[in-house]
Amino acid sequence: MLDGMKSMQRKLLWGMVGGGQNSQIGSAHRIGAGLDGFFEFAAGALDVVPERGREFAMLHGISPERAYGDWREMLERERGLPPGERLDLVTVATPNSTHFEIAQAFLNEGYHVLCEKPLTTTVEDAEKLVQTSLERNRILAVNYGYTGYPMVRQARAMVKAGDLGAVRVVVAEFAHGSHADAADADNPRVRWRYDPAQAGVSSVLADTGLHALHMACYVIGRRVAKIAADFASCVGGRVLEDDAMATLRFTGGEVGRLWASAVAVGQTHGLTLRVFGERGGLRWSQEQPNQLAWTPLGQPTQILERGAGGLAPEANRASRITVGHVEGMLPAFANIYADLAAEIRRRETAGDAAPVAVEYPTGEDGLHTLEVVHAAAESARRGGTWIDFGTHRPAS
Amino acid sequence: MLDGMKSMQRKLLWGMVGGGQNSQIGSAHRIGAGLDGFFEFAAGALDVVPERGREFAMLHGISPERAYGDWREMLERERGLPPGERLDLVTVATPNSTHFEIAQAFLNEGYHVLCEKPLTTTVEDAEKLVQTSLERNRILAVNYGYTGYPMVRQARAMVKAGDLGAVRVVVAEFAHGSHADAADADNPRVRWRYDPAQAGVSSVLADTGLHALHMACYVIGRRVAKIAADFASCVGGRVLEDDAMATLRFTGGEVGRLWASAVAVGQTHGLTLRVFGERGGLRWSQEQPNQLAWTPLGQPTQILERGAGGLAPEANRASRITVGHVEGMLPAFANIYADLAAEIRRRETAGDAAPVAVEYPTGEDGLHTLEVVHAAAESARRGGTWIDFGTHRPAS
Amino acid sequence: MLDGMKSMQRKLLWGMVGGGQNSQIGSAHRIGAGLDGFFEFAAGALDVVPERGREFAMLHGISPERAYGDWREMLERERGLPPGERLDLVTVATPNSTHFEIAQAFLNEGYHVLCEKPLTTTVEDAEKLVQTSLERNRILAVNYGYTGYPMVRQARAMVKAGDLGAVRVVVAEFAHGSHADAADADNPRVRWRYDPAQAGVSSVLADTGLHALHMACYVIGRRVAKIAADFASCVGGRVLEDDAMATLRFTGGEVGRLWASAVAVGQTHGLTLRVFGERGGLRWSQEQPNQLAWTPLGQPTQILERGAGGLAPEANRASRITVGHVEGMLPAFANIYADLAAEIRRRETAGDAAPVAVEYPTGEDGLHTLEVVHAAAESARRGGTWIDFGTHRPAS
Amino acid sequence: MLDGMKSMQRKLLWGMVGGGQNSQIGSAHRIGAGLDGFFEFAAGALDVVPERGREFAMLHGISPERAYGDWREMLERERGLPPGERLDLVTVATPNSTHFEIAQAFLNEGYHVLCEKPLTTTVEDAEKLVQTSLERNRILAVNYGYTGYPMVRQARAMVKAGDLGAVRVVVAEFAHGSHADAADADNPRVRWRYDPAQAGVSSVLADTGLHALHMACYVIGRRVAKIAADFASCVGGRVLEDDAMATLRFTGGEVGRLWASAVAVGQTHGLTLRVFGERGGLRWSQEQPNQLAWTPLGQPTQILERGAGGLAPEANRASRITVGHVEGMLPAFANIYADLAAEIRRRETAGDAAPVAVEYPTGEDGLHTLEVVHAAAESARRGGTWIDFGTHRPAS
Repeated sequence: MLDGMKSMQRKLLWGMVGGGQNSQIGSAHRIGAGLDGFFEFAAGALDVVPERGREFAMLHGISPERAYGDWREMLERERGLPPGERLDLVTVATPNSTHFEIAQAFLNEGYHVLCEKPLTTTVEDAEKLVQTSLERNRILAVNYGYTGYPMVRQARAMVKAGDLGAVRVVVAEFAHGSHADAADADNPRVRWRYDPAQAGVSSVLADTGLHALHMACYVIGRRVAKIAADFASCVGGRVLEDDAMATLRFTGGEVGRLWASAVAVGQTHGLTLRVFGERGGLRWSQEQPNQLAWTPLGQPTQILERGAGGLAPEANRASRITVGHVEGMLPAFANIYADLAAEIRRRETAGDAAPVAVEYPTGEDGLHTLEVVHAAAESARRGGTWIDFGTHRPAS
Repeated sequence: MLDGMKSMQRKLLWGMVGGGQNSQIGSAHRIGAGLDGFFEFAAGALDVVPERGREFAMLHGISPERAYGDWREMLERERGLPPGERLDLVTVATPNSTHFEIAQAFLNEGYHVLCEKPLTTTVEDAEKLVQTSLERNRILAVNYGYTGYPMVRQARAMVKAGDLGAVRVVVAEFAHGSHADAADADNPRVRWRYDPAQAGVSSVLADTGLHALHMACYVIGRRVAKIAADFASCVGGRVLEDDAMATLRFTGGEVGRLWASAVAVGQTHGLTLRVFGERGGLRWSQEQPNQLAWTPLGQPTQILERGAGGLAPEANRASRITVGHVEGMLPAFANIYADLAAEIRRRETAGDAAPVAVEYPTGEDGLHTLEVVHAAAESARRGGTWIDFGTHRPAS
Repeated sequence: MLDGMKSMQRKLLWGMVGGGQNSQIGSAHRIGAGLDGFFEFAAGALDVVPERGREFAMLHGISPERAYGDWREMLERERGLPPGERLDLVTVATPNSTHFEIAQAFLNEGYHVLCEKPLTTTVEDAEKLVQTSLERNRILAVNYGYTGYPMVRQARAMVKAGDLGAVRVVVAEFAHGSHADAADADNPRVRWRYDPAQAGVSSVLADTGLHALHMACYVIGRRVAKIAADFASCVGGRVLEDDAMATLRFTGGEVGRLWASAVAVGQTHGLTLRVFGERGGLRWSQEQPNQLAWTPLGQPTQILERGAGGLAPEANRASRITVGHVEGMLPAFANIYADLAAEIRRRETAGDAAPVAVEYPTGEDGLHTLEVVHAAAESARRGGTWIDFGTHRPAS
Repeated sequence: MLDGMKSMQRKLLWGMVGGGQNSQIGSAHRIGAGLDGFFEFAAGALDVVPERGREFAMLHGISPERAYGDWREMLERERGLPPGERLDLVTVATPNSTHFEIAQAFLNEGYHVLCEKPLTTTVEDAEKLVQTSLERNRILAVNYGYTGYPMVRQARAMVKAGDLGAVRVVVAEFAHGSHADAADADNPRVRWRYDPAQAGVSSVLADTGLHALHMACYVIGRRVAKIAADFASCVGGRVLEDDAMATLRFTGGEVGRLWASAVAVGQTHGLTLRVFGERGGLRWSQEQPNQLAWTPLGQPTQILERGAGGLAPEANRASRITVGHVEGMLPAFANIYADLAAEIRRRETAGDAAPVAVEYPTGEDGLHTLEVVHAAAESARRGGTWIDFGTHRPAS
């Protein structure tokens, strides 16, 4: 378990841009980064309103001199800090349209960066970010946090180990009903999501569908080779889609079925993954994440439990408490941060390879999923024709 | 409940073609037809091997003189029977490719006919059957038996009553793993299903997908207006698809998502329906058919139970035992037969309208779903382009 | 499957006392007896109101001359029938207090009898019935119909085969909320159940608890050796218990925990059984009866499915339709009738032993469970002291 | 949500005795105490092996001078610290038999104390601790951490608000199979639990049953008035019980049913609570803690979701992330710490009452549940006679 991974090394220093008082995701980042004690929250520019951001940062233990009014100020004033005080990781949790500029600036300044999803709003910007991270040799990660769940990692490990044989079909869903109320159409927290000027080429597929898509890629270890999609706008007045279906082929020839919806009343937060292979099938659901249903071909379904004996090392190292208890989203987020901490430390001590490969979602993952969503949007515009990526992309 | 519907009228006489000793579905028909005591099993040509068919018929209580060696013999020798001995309904449960010829012959002879699904193997044949049934004024029904489940009827009644407001999205699945074992590829019980010469243009979509498709139409009271599909053959050597995804628009503009698979290891018999509307969402699963999950917009999900108070009359009249007990597939089949019995008796006594509309799936339903599957196959061949039916079709 | 058990033998003739128009259970008996075609409904005295009973019988296909006004008339007038018309089995489904007199009369007349539960209202009467059945060499069965479920039989077969090793603990529940509404206290359909003058020494334990108790005995193949109980009357004005807890020891030293309730709002029909042994544990629930959860010691839980490969012959022969479909209460009842049919035929043809032992619940089972309930009532009156039965009773 | 409760006040200082490297619970305390940022881990004596404890403490960020070898050293050397450095709360997570001495010492020294359960091994010691906490006016809390789950608090709030009307029956279970393997009987981590010399008068009831018992009291706001119990030792060689059943009456006359087991193979961590009242019933399960099933009398069951609209303030303030995500055990523990932080701060600023009553389990709760367990053990020894507490105890 993670607890045993610790060393006497110093805590890593962590900063965040965005994620302040009114942010739902900011709290999950703060708890996730702090949960295992790997990171100390040392600096931040947390709010679009400078004073509110400074106060909120100090409320969370940041010293007044590192509680900034905006990210440019943060970038500028952190520049002169001595190595022992310099941030090890910066999380970008601002509105989507600002991810690129901020992440680019911090990468260029030499910081490792974890960016909220979607990585950027255009494919070109995502390519630039990945390019910058390579040139500067800095980590660029994207927060597909659900891949931090131990039983998602178990699924990936089982596919990798060949337990399923060749994967044939992957069915991924992320459907909720949060934008189903037509009376909310003018609510500014909802409206911008369906406006191309603010949200780009896709709404629900780029918002929740992205998680399901990445999880499919992550678990089967493939990229998307081609995609065809159908977008629908069910609530009056929306330009972008609030329900999307896509059919895919992955680079190994696997078949993918992907559904995302924001009008699925009764599906609270319906992220599910089903993987069917030659020798067995797996089913996982975000709303009951500590179990993984595993059906070996011709045998009864087994319910694999997080924390039980017989799981893969990748699942066990992402698990903190004993079997039968529930580990939820916050430890899943913490697993992304734990992986980043391990990678940051590995880079500090050349030649000291991590015993287990870290599993955080990379900038390449963020770029690839964005490309797929943009291709899906193009397919939908063209009446559902296939958009082919070729089969040259590396496994994730 | 059904028990109260009975009258002092004579039992109706029922015959079957096919459904003999090695038939899985034959037993369900015999039990379904007999369960409520509406029908008496009076004649049959049950097997492709004449003697075996005769013996099996007598074993099930058919008199030796009405236990036939083949359907032509049955048609011929039943012809001379007096009105009181004449069959009221003939069920056709033979291999798919023979449905047309047999159903056509019995319709022409003036019998009411219940045909197993798919109604025929070509759209043209299905059109002819429907035409014959109209010309002869005989019932032509197709056995989409899952629509006999009380909570499926509850779902339809709730949509009809406007509980969901306008329906926006329907997600229908029928996925199982029965043909996932590559070692079965040469098993003759499996192989023919993926051979176009024997199975036609579609395998899994025409086999299980058809049920999900009809259930979607039935519950929302619409026909399909257009469809786009993607077929995949996952097991080596198969020509026809063993995994299919389709996206649809119904005649009221509703969005449909349809997935069928025969390689989904771990999905035992995964027929599920989800319907999302303006004011609420419904979820139903064949493996737990006595419950219907109902989420009114902005409120907690409720678990509606078959037999409980507050359900629609259409659900209550399809229900036999008290709440909390399980009613399974056999009573669901029996509901199709009960509806047919009600309609047959209604026709006998002109002007005596049934108090509740009967709900059995009609020949038109069988034709329509077949057209949709054929259109899906064409779409898949053309790379997923939409096939448009127009919006002129009547509601189911 | 059952379908294969049939022979060319004549249908058995079946009669019922009680179970008429207003009876919930009567319909389940009629369908259960008829479902497999083993029995023909030939005679009945179905109602306390003679004319209503006669009409209801004829409505269900009984000839006018065998549609009786009361059970004494039935007994009398059936007496002279020739062997080929004589009833093979009589079901008693009248109010509890009349079971003894009617069952006794029919046994004495030489009929096989299936009696609804509880067998009688006093232990002495139950002993007399068992004695009569032995003296007259007639079958006396009691309708603990839930033991007809295939997966309950699978559980029993697994215990018998030693899959669990020695059984340690059995937890049986039957809790519902049907009598929770205090406003129903004066409803005559509810009130009599809590009145000792009408219901005897126990209400909910004798009503639903009896099923759970018998199922525990049936699955582990033991009798109760001793019991201690606590009765509570939760709704004002009730003398008898509407909530009961008992702790038990079975004849093999196994520990039992038994809970029955009629005030458990939200538990629709909560009959569940959990069996824990040295080498594994089993869980079954009446509301999802086609699955049995099986956890081998130290391994993941497996979901065993009715109809799947690898089950015991006792489960397979009680199953009619393919895996993944739902078989509910009516086929479970039919399994009791199928077992009775097999036993009746076995007795007709001496020396022709059934290949698989029949499993219907016997008069001894009915007597034993009644003794246990009466002992529980005595224990509750005495403040929860143990009532010991000794360990001399034979396995069920 | 909790995030909004923060103030600019200093972090509280926290220390722990026990909970070191090989402790399962220690990690949950560290994460729980740190999760919201209310406490800083400032001092500890974490291990029975002094050097190992010191190293482990430093590994978790404790300064070398406050990483102690044993609790006496900690008590001694912390004594002279100035107010700003003095610990605000000490958690005792050592073996059960040492709780009393350590907690007593820290209370006497003027610290607030959170003690792991069971509070002590004898009732007398628990009474002394409660007495000391009163005399010294220090908080004494006991870690019944599962009451930190938001939906458990929702259940309590609904009972308090009268949604259920008068509570009639409470069914509480905590059953697992972790000690089912007879081969583990000599494993020292298991054996001591069934040895009276080390574990006292009760094993599984005092270990897991205690949680279920407290949760029942907590949710219905009552103490136990009387209890009768049956203990069984199922695995050979055990003196203390590994399976226990108790029946209870609470101070308001409510009926309780309590089952605890350590041999329930297949029940991973089966803590469940069911509460049945005049006007509705509630069901909660630790393995799916974000949902609460609520059945209003005569209406369908509703699935209440953590984070959804319409919940009680007590549930909302214990919740951190949006609806549909999973909050597990670590945030539940953190809620206990959050309540302690609120109470500690309230005491610092007299007259500044908390707007919502804090809900942490108190020393009185720990004493009461211990008394009940000891009474249960006595009842079991006496053959299940009722042990009466009177009805004078205050509501929890």
